Amino acid sequence: MLTLYGYWRSSAAYRVRIALNLKGLAYEQVPVHLVKDGGQQHSAAYKALNPQELLPLLADEGHGGVKIAQSLAILEYLDEVFPETPLLPRDPLRRAQVRALALHIACDLHPLNNLRVLQYLTGELGVSDAAKDAWYQHWLHNGLAAVEAGLAPFEGGFSLGEQPGYLEACLVPQLYNARRFNCDLDAYPRILAMTARCETLQAFAQAAPEVQPDAV
Amino acid sequence: MLTLYGYWRSSAAYRVRIALNLKGLAYEQVPVHLVKDGGQQHSAAYKALNPQELLPLLADEGHGGVKIAQSLAILEYLDEVFPETPLLPRDPLRRAQVRALALHIACDLHPLNNLRVLQYLTGELGVSDAAKDAWYQHWLHNGLAAVEAGLAPFEGGFSLGEQPGYLEACLVPQLYNARRFNCDLDAYPRILAMTARCETLQAFAQAAPEVQPDAV
Repeated sequence: MLTLYGYWRSSAAYRVRIALNLKGLAYEQVPVHLVKDGGQQHSAAYKALNPQELLPLLADEGHGGVKIAQSLAILEYLDEVFPETPLLPRDPLRRAQVRALALHIACDLHPLNNLRVLQYLTGELGVSDAAKDAWYQHWLHNGLAAVEAGLAPFEGGFSLGEQPGYLEACLVPQLYNARRFNCDLDAYPRILAMTARCETLQAFAQAAPEVQPDAV
Repeated sequence: MLTLYGYWRSSAAYRVRIALNLKGLAYEQVPVHLVKDGGQQHSAAYKALNPQELLPLLADEGHGGVKIAQSLAILEYLDEVFPETPLLPRDPLRRAQVRALALHIACDLHPLNNLRVLQYLTGELGVSDAAKDAWYQHWLHNGLAAVEAGLAPFEGGFSLGEQPGYLEACLVPQLYNARRFNCDLDAYPRILAMTARCETLQAFAQAAPEVQPDAV
């Protein structure tokens, strides 16, 4: 039994939902509300499970109830323990290309525009809404431009040829966020095409934020 | 032949130097100055190699001259292609624990305190030096507290028992940065002890920023 601690709008949790669906793994969801009660991820109960106080967290009852933090650590774990329907290509060079793009999203784009960072900007730093929006757009476009260039070897297909995986699990949630913040995406035709291909697949449709049990 | 595009003070490049040294792999260094010329990582020549315009980048001439961006993608690649002296433990649960800690540093701590972000704070946002320092300390202590808790299973040793690897390659450069910014680290005895154990090893000493050819 797999249990995913997540939040419908957390794009890191969204990555893991996609990966679990691609592998056809059943899982239970435990919602952790990122805003209510000052952020339930900071509650003593959740902090005892995950000292990082971030989402997502995966508990694997089939393997001693181990709890794994960090979405990309979870994706790697799933690919190692449930190798059927791989998330990463087999060739080490291709794997490296995929990981480099996914990590660019996960390290250098997403964390800068995360809710807790935007809250720090408007709270502690007293930044205006306009300046906060400019910050968001700056890091988003900076990151997406690099991803667009990096997608050249995957044009017309998925990161595993016929199948999406690790890369798409990071890309689609990032695009969801970009659209939520009304970002102009015309400069990224490869990203838009890959995302559109993913959105026709059930694994992605069923991972979408709006259809999660805790969506409001 | 391996070539590392880096910068002596880039902590992401520092991670890769440690990993290469741990594996005993020879490599050439190409310095890319992060400040000179408005940041040489933004030059047309470098951008053609790495559209992410970030360091490090690894070129592997032995494998078709492939170029790999993102320090953690490089670490994974090295562990797959040069498996001797592994960077990650063998057990998937242990691997997941190690990756979750390394990713917490690489995704949720380091990018927020990166040079380009600090530059945006003081430049575009006109934030004072004191407020910038408070930002730095906020994300550093937030991240280190979680890492300190996560190190409990590794107390007294390394992430691979007798040997350091992936985790230490991320931890030691982060500590180097924290010391550069005069952060009080007394609250993190496990981090300090693990770092001290690493610092006695040649692989770490030879990767230190100050002994790199481009150090000034």
